[in-house]
Amino acid sequence: MDTWMRLMANDGSIVFGRVENGYLHEYEGLDQPVPTGAVLSLRALTPLAPCAPGKVVALWNNFHALARKLEKPVPDHPLFLIKPAESVIGSGETILRPAHYAGKIVFEGELGIVIGKRCRNASLEEAQAAIFGYTVVNDVTAAGLLAENPHFPQWCRAKGFDTFCCLGPAIVSGFDWRDASVVTLLDGVERQNYPLDDMVFTPAQQVSLISQDLTLEAGDVIACGTSLGVGSIGEGATVEVTIEGIGTLANTLHSPVAARQTQSEDARVV
Amino acid sequence: MDTWMRLMANDGSIVFGRVENGYLHEYEGLDQPVPTGAVLSLRALTPLAPCAPGKVVALWNNFHALARKLEKPVPDHPLFLIKPAESVIGSGETILRPAHYAGKIVFEGELGIVIGKRCRNASLEEAQAAIFGYTVVNDVTAAGLLAENPHFPQWCRAKGFDTFCCLGPAIVSGFDWRDASVVTLLDGVERQNYPLDDMVFTPAQQVSLISQDLTLEAGDVIACGTSLGVGSIGEGATVEVTIEGIGTLANTLHSPVAARQTQSEDARVV
Repeated sequence: MDTWMRLMANDGSIVFGRVENGYLHEYEGLDQPVPTGAVLSLRALTPLAPCAPGKVVALWNNFHALARKLEKPVPDHPLFLIKPAESVIGSGETILRPAHYAGKIVFEGELGIVIGKRCRNASLEEAQAAIFGYTVVNDVTAAGLLAENPHFPQWCRAKGFDTFCCLGPAIVSGFDWRDASVVTLLDGVERQNYPLDDMVFTPAQQVSLISQDLTLEAGDVIACGTSLGVGSIGEGATVEVTIEGIGTLANTLHSPVAARQTQSEDARVV
Repeated sequence: MDTWMRLMANDGSIVFGRVENGYLHEYEGLDQPVPTGAVLSLRALTPLAPCAPGKVVALWNNFHALARKLEKPVPDHPLFLIKPAESVIGSGETILRPAHYAGKIVFEGELGIVIGKRCRNASLEEAQAAIFGYTVVNDVTAAGLLAENPHFPQWCRAKGFDTFCCLGPAIVSGFDWRDASVVTLLDGVERQNYPLDDMVFTPAQQVSLISQDLTLEAGDVIACGTSLGVGSIGEGATVEVTIEGIGTLANTLHSPVAARQTQSEDARVV
């Protein structure tokens, strides 16, 4: 298992690499795992989302326990929507309430698959080999918009707002998701705690099946869907999603005005 | 009005610029409309999709005539899904039938808005100023997948397949969409002919409203939705979508095997 992070240096440049004992061993990139030779102290760097996906493919109804609770059959094929690149933020960044939306905003703690190389019509084995590693996702949703229009469920809009795809803090390669759980705390109180081996489609199945539809690129993320315990995030509340072995992804929700007021505070948290 | 194209040179490099009398006057890019000074003969260049969007935002139910036919009220806010970057092809390229899908594939001739600069929370005036120009779109859909799962309409999957977003042949800046129509021919027979002034949300309204939700980047495309006359594309059939003043976008549908057989033929069409 190796832990990979993406961070910003003081001069605004972005570095990516393997983390060991408080140091970043810089690599060319996700799709070029070649060390540059540079070794940087993490203390001088600001963490970012651990990759910069061109798109995030987010699954719905991919856990048996949630399917039972929703009284829906498990699907025959991954059911997904696309969250745009601009929705991605890293751990410690602020989830921004959309200016013209006063409704419920919910968290969904999830496992994220990070693609390591271009992947199209991949067999299960090719799909497995195309997985660079795993990260933690909070797939945020403006729940009140999903069914706002009775003729068109607005999955992309409700989940596609800027800052609505929290990723991080790191990517772990060689991670065994089968023994892991997703634990979500809301202001320190446990709200989700579900085992990843309850997934309907395994990560390799997801990558293989989705790659029959659309090309996955290096750095793209598949959010594996959530299970029981999804809930609403109040103004100023902090969601912490932990997958042991990967880390804790922490993000606080603010309205745009409050976010501006607490900007200096957030900077310290980052 | 200026006409802009993106093309590939023999060495594989990509050039973008203004077209005049059979020559391309090269520019730095969409978001940097600065001429490089190079002037290239179009005859030595292969046309590509006229921009490389990070995402395509595709509208549903944005024409009064179609809303009446579907017996749906016109929406209060643009209803959209996201088509990924990898779905984009240019005029003359082949629409590929997904390998594991034998159902109906339909064309939708549309106006495309090309964003010229990053756009977030834009007023109507800012939105208007952020529009670089307009192109022609064929928003292809695997119609049989939309309602395949009764619990989750698969808009992103049905419209997100590789090659399912045809764009081109050019972008025209300063184009007046109000007097224009979209005309779609299937194997030479007219199937759509609808006026753009029947749109529910004008291009500037679309850009302004969508930019309240998610950041639009330079090169991103908004497909304005279609109107009456959508239909099925048979194997080997060619769809030509024309907006007078912009040009004709022509694409042929093939199954993957047939596409490989006709590859040399397609190359000549391009």
